[in-house]
Amino acid sequence: MNSLSLAGPQNLHGAAAVKFSPSRTQPTPKFSPFTVNMSLQKDAPSIAVVGVTGAVGQEFLSVLSDRNFPYSSIKMLASKRSAGKKFTFEGVEYVVEELTEDSFSGVDIALFSAGGGISKKLGPIAAKCGTVVVDNSSAFRMDENVPLVIPEVNPEAMRDIKLGKGAIIANPNCSTIICLMAVTPLHKRAKVLRMVVSTYQAASGAGAAAMDELVQQTREVLEGKQPTCNIFKRQYAFNLFSHNAPVLSNGYNEEEMKLVKETRKIWNDTDIKVTATCIRVPVMRAHAESINLQFENPLDEDTAREILKNAPGVVIIDDRASNNFPTPLEVSNKDAVAVGRIRRDVSQEGNYGLDIFVCGDQIRKGAALNAVQIAELLL
Amino acid sequence: MNSLSLAGPQNLHGAAAVKFSPSRTQPTPKFSPFTVNMSLQKDAPSIAVVGVTGAVGQEFLSVLSDRNFPYSSIKMLASKRSAGKKFTFEGVEYVVEELTEDSFSGVDIALFSAGGGISKKLGPIAAKCGTVVVDNSSAFRMDENVPLVIPEVNPEAMRDIKLGKGAIIANPNCSTIICLMAVTPLHKRAKVLRMVVSTYQAASGAGAAAMDELVQQTREVLEGKQPTCNIFKRQYAFNLFSHNAPVLSNGYNEEEMKLVKETRKIWNDTDIKVTATCIRVPVMRAHAESINLQFENPLDEDTAREILKNAPGVVIIDDRASNNFPTPLEVSNKDAVAVGRIRRDVSQEGNYGLDIFVCGDQIRKGAALNAVQIAELLL
Repeated sequence: MNSLSLAGPQNLHGAAAVKFSPSRTQPTPKFSPFTVNMSLQKDAPSIAVVGVTGAVGQEFLSVLSDRNFPYSSIKMLASKRSAGKKFTFEGVEYVVEELTEDSFSGVDIALFSAGGGISKKLGPIAAKCGTVVVDNSSAFRMDENVPLVIPEVNPEAMRDIKLGKGAIIANPNCSTIICLMAVTPLHKRAKVLRMVVSTYQAASGAGAAAMDELVQQTREVLEGKQPTCNIFKRQYAFNLFSHNAPVLSNGYNEEEMKLVKETRKIWNDTDIKVTATCIRVPVMRAHAESINLQFENPLDEDTAREILKNAPGVVIIDDRASNNFPTPLEVSNKDAVAVGRIRRDVSQEGNYGLDIFVCGDQIRKGAALNAVQIAELLL
Repeated sequence: MNSLSLAGPQNLHGAAAVKFSPSRTQPTPKFSPFTVNMSLQKDAPSIAVVGVTGAVGQEFLSVLSDRNFPYSSIKMLASKRSAGKKFTFEGVEYVVEELTEDSFSGVDIALFSAGGGISKKLGPIAAKCGTVVVDNSSAFRMDENVPLVIPEVNPEAMRDIKLGKGAIIANPNCSTIICLMAVTPLHKRAKVLRMVVSTYQAASGAGAAAMDELVQQTREVLEGKQPTCNIFKRQYAFNLFSHNAPVLSNGYNEEEMKLVKETRKIWNDTDIKVTATCIRVPVMRAHAESINLQFENPLDEDTAREILKNAPGVVIIDDRASNNFPTPLEVSNKDAVAVGRIRRDVSQEGNYGLDIFVCGDQIRKGAALNAVQIAELLL
């Protein structure tokens, strides 16, 4: 796919496969009972989805289905609070089971997105059972024994992982994935020396409840009422703020340091200089990033554009004449990361610098899609 | 003022002195008939406000009143379409007059904010009449005979301008003003070599109608309807996009090149390296900017914070422990530019780099307040 057509103004969530009910904190899983089940296969791996009722958990299912991921069985795991909920997936009715230490016997692949605490506690237990865990949390990302993988970027990092032998593979942070999808092809050509990133991060990064709160606050503010501030402690509607992740002693917040550290690990380069400022903006589910690059070798903007045209999982939206560039809305619910504003950095000498603007669906490529793609590498 | 207290969740526009009616395209000027008129003085300059019914025009009046700017008379000028509208300002009823070439006879100071076309046509005519024009448009900013002024930064640039002798002084672009208010004190101490800016720009920068459209679109999207796209040609509600200013042949849009060029002019330094990415975000009237700085001389974050504490027109909101930093909502309708996230840039050696995050009210310090402060220098 070389270009992303502008589908025209879209609704709140884009063309969502899973409909979120703004009035409920937990999305109710809803899948058509009439979808033909292409994936259920006897000899295929057994899967578990941990945190299945959350935003990413639901997206795991959506992606597995979209990509016809083969499975012999699928276990829907969540907290006690959600256990017992019924829903239909690919024509089969499932009951959400409570996640326990015993949930993983016989499970080949477990997709985790239930927070770092759960991953830390149950990830190793699952791995001991022989499960290959694909963990969307930050719990193990910087662990030197755990591969941190973006399949289009560094699949070789997980070459020692095999089905049947328990292990943990970490899914990078959403902003890291979106950034490196666009920048790595350029890095491979001209070697990035330094990267300055400013992000525009969506509500979904803080979960379904955060998306609901943004909607609720927006309604309240439009009606002249005080906004409800449970998740974010401040008004989010028509506002933006420095990412809510804790601020560390160096003045960076955890979200920013994830980008710095995970980039170094994924690119296997401890020298690479990265700085980031992560900001929460009032959009629903796709992140945007303004990225300034300094290269060791020259890379002009036309060559950069050619490289990106052929980059896997990336589309270019870069039309100067009609001022058409990536927006979060256009990439929402889509797989590709969109890149635009590709231009020579006027503040750097010669062709050693570029500026680009990147958007990617935080729940999809930023989380669930990347994780399922990791699982696909195991097949 | 060393700190900006968090007033708690605010309404759509912040504590607006001028209430915009979302249902009308042009805001109806509304001032209390009971305000005591402190400013009307016989020996004071006569003023004209050009584009008085626009967002900035209204803010000119608000600021003149707030600051008790002395005037002997004040002329309210706008297009033919708005001529005849009546409103009360500081206890006096005014009728909006149609702006013509003859509007400036006897006018000492004219505050222009009616677009570059009007400024280009009528600015020089007003100056010929002996008027000192303070122009908020981009028409004359890069003209070598026209001072480009931020009063706290480079008041000396207008030292040759005197009341009674016609001239044009240019008000810089909103994003330039907000950026340089925060960065100049640091530049004066340690000399900025290079600056990388990513902006988060409010609807107000595109006028009152743009603010109305954002509100209207947001209502429509929440109701599941198609958003009305007149000003921006795309959905703005819950979305963001590369600034709508035309894109030039170097791939930068005009808004970005304004920041680059105006910084060089204001700092009187053609070598200063600046790159910018300007993004429109769905907030109402205050811009945010993520700014990465490289200095010639070392400047650690504590010294930087001290310098900014004492910087005129700047407040610090930089509380790491409670994750409290500048937001557009908090600076809306306020004079000060707020700075936070002040930290050593981990991607640069030693203490030669800083990252900061800045917010400022686009209509106020980004436009009207700066212009009135320029006018104050003439008194």
